[in-house]
Amino acid sequence: MRGEIIAIGDELTTGRIINTTSFFAASQLFTAGHEVIAMTTIGDEVELIGQTIRQALGRADFIIVTGGLGPTTDDLTNIAVSAALERPATFYPEISKKIAAHGANNPPEVQSALEKLAWLPAGAHALHTEAETAGYFLVQDGKPIFFLPGVPHEMKELLVETVLTRLAVWEGEEGRRVRQKVYKVVGLAEAEINNKLEHLEDPAHGVRIGYYPVLPEVHVSLTVAGNGEATIDQRFRDLDTAISEILGRAIYGCGIDSLESVVGRLLNWQGKTLAVAESCSGGLLAHKITRVSGSSAYFLGGVVAYSNDLKERLLGVPAGVLLQHGAVSSETALAMAEGIRRLTGADLGVATTGIAGPGGGSEAKPVGTVYMALATATRTDDRLLRLAGDRWQIQEHASQFALDMVRRSLLDSQ
Amino acid sequence: MRGEIIAIGDELTTGRIINTTSFFAASQLFTAGHEVIAMTTIGDEVELIGQTIRQALGRADFIIVTGGLGPTTDDLTNIAVSAALERPATFYPEISKKIAAHGANNPPEVQSALEKLAWLPAGAHALHTEAETAGYFLVQDGKPIFFLPGVPHEMKELLVETVLTRLAVWEGEEGRRVRQKVYKVVGLAEAEINNKLEHLEDPAHGVRIGYYPVLPEVHVSLTVAGNGEATIDQRFRDLDTAISEILGRAIYGCGIDSLESVVGRLLNWQGKTLAVAESCSGGLLAHKITRVSGSSAYFLGGVVAYSNDLKERLLGVPAGVLLQHGAVSSETALAMAEGIRRLTGADLGVATTGIAGPGGGSEAKPVGTVYMALATATRTDDRLLRLAGDRWQIQEHASQFALDMVRRSLLDSQ
Repeated sequence: MRGEIIAIGDELTTGRIINTTSFFAASQLFTAGHEVIAMTTIGDEVELIGQTIRQALGRADFIIVTGGLGPTTDDLTNIAVSAALERPATFYPEISKKIAAHGANNPPEVQSALEKLAWLPAGAHALHTEAETAGYFLVQDGKPIFFLPGVPHEMKELLVETVLTRLAVWEGEEGRRVRQKVYKVVGLAEAEINNKLEHLEDPAHGVRIGYYPVLPEVHVSLTVAGNGEATIDQRFRDLDTAISEILGRAIYGCGIDSLESVVGRLLNWQGKTLAVAESCSGGLLAHKITRVSGSSAYFLGGVVAYSNDLKERLLGVPAGVLLQHGAVSSETALAMAEGIRRLTGADLGVATTGIAGPGGGSEAKPVGTVYMALATATRTDDRLLRLAGDRWQIQEHASQFALDMVRRSLLDSQ
Repeated sequence: MRGEIIAIGDELTTGRIINTTSFFAASQLFTAGHEVIAMTTIGDEVELIGQTIRQALGRADFIIVTGGLGPTTDDLTNIAVSAALERPATFYPEISKKIAAHGANNPPEVQSALEKLAWLPAGAHALHTEAETAGYFLVQDGKPIFFLPGVPHEMKELLVETVLTRLAVWEGEEGRRVRQKVYKVVGLAEAEINNKLEHLEDPAHGVRIGYYPVLPEVHVSLTVAGNGEATIDQRFRDLDTAISEILGRAIYGCGIDSLESVVGRLLNWQGKTLAVAESCSGGLLAHKITRVSGSSAYFLGGVVAYSNDLKERLLGVPAGVLLQHGAVSSETALAMAEGIRRLTGADLGVATTGIAGPGGGSEAKPVGTVYMALATATRTDDRLLRLAGDRWQIQEHASQFALDMVRRSLLDSQ
């Protein structure tokens, strides 16, 4: 279906906050087989909000509106919707009850501000069974309009858990069946994956395969659409099996998996612990690992050894290695990985050392040269990367490849 | 003036590329005193492009359009503009000449594709004296419409060098002067800042103050607008002085400053070094510090001590302290800060320990309880934070407050 995304908030139109939620929504919709024809970001202005929604109704099959649902006076989305779609504000006693129950400890003035959330445009249906997050949908001219909170994590959760499933049913009502899956791939270039899979593409039979670089990963979407539930499901299962066999371990996960969450799951299953020794990734690798809830069960910690002195004293990299091969070398990476494993007693120790730039490069070791190593009880391996991009990209890619090195080692030991 | 930004490109509406250029443009326009009422991102579709431009003409004083100006067949902006504004494509011999001169070494098929760039809607004026970057403007209904390339660095360069200066003259023609500044504040709540500054607000004399929480920071914008260059400049200087005095050290910077870049600058000026000991912030603090180019000059490194064992063995936190007060305690934070300073020989050692959640909280120490400590040559201080939000927010806020603790200590020692 053709959708439109409207983000509301002065903080967005002044450029103080980059609107990443609209792009998250667009990529999710796209991988679910929808087309996004327009994304609009507008300020908190009643007339403009109404005008934008009415315009979208004229050209899109569905609309997603984010922001402006909160309890403060500058949250104007509901007022604008009521006016633009002639749906008077209506009191929803169930939502009010849940607000009262959740906010038992709130001061009275906060509670009375929250009470505003129980008033929605007539015909609205709450998206969530719990009233902890605002969010509702209504059907106008036969088209669904979803209203989601602007807070990124609430918006993303509601989008994935309720909007995408409802849109899938919407398509189903026309007798059409759509099956969709996103494979997250690391370690293969977009063109290589394309070469391996293009013989499976079959648009004439509703089979579309999309390739989306989210460097250093590539996300591959499989969409199978058409009439006949059994036919489509069988076709989807066959293709799913084929893609999984062809890409093998290069697929690290599906849907909302991240490399760090997959690595965490493998460590948990195998009852193993991990520690990191970072130079060029500068803490980003530890940060990615620890942003996963429950990571303290398998992550012991790490050392960010920016100075040679710390590499030597804390991680036990021999002074001779640093002198002879330099801090950015295979030998130093190997010694760092073994050092952090020894120091922490972790089952796996992973290390990065390289030149993130913009300064510090040389002809032999230009900016983007990164050595990684992984030490386990039985062996220590290293890997050389030659990364392109700016400082941010080099740190990002180095930490992703280090996570992938851990993942492949854990798969090998299963 | 009230402006509207329109970004064109299928790669944007599918969410494969986050449209940062629109947000760059919005923040530049905002700081130049303009208001952005809407930002739209649309696919490469002639009719939609025309419709969106005509709609923007109906409500904005100026329009900035980016993307779709290139030589390939999916670049449709000029065709859409010609149709929507009834301005037939017109040959610009000067542009053609420059293309020929620049592309002397191009193969003929490239050169003939580039020749397309010499055809613009009637009434267009090239923005650049050199034809190396596409970009033009035209005046419709008395309103300027700027067409810029979608390539970020070309777009940003043309925006800053030509669009903003032309818009200033446009305003200048009405005799109006606008001065604007954004203060970045940390350690004061939005309401506190509002209380301290509201007596300075004076919309009747063109003085507007805006408060924008970018938690845990608050960004405060001062805009002074009106007639008479000298009057406005004097008013702006007086208010700038007043705000700086009232908020004092709570202002950490202006414009594009970040806490980590300001801390880096102070460390460089004072010739001091920093090391970090992280528990609950899990590497994010080190990551923020090391994403600044040149941070290796003052950042020695750090330890992410997730396990008690590492806190004890690496950072020298006494076992008795961990046993008696727990890992999340003022005593542990103090010992971690002193430990990392001793271990690395840094001038400043900063530490975080807390409960990022969602699990691990207790009644005495709920999720969001964070202890920080800072050790210098002369003293060690600690601080207790009680943070709200999810795991991501607690890690983010803890790392920001730790940076601010370092900043204030460096200011004290000046």
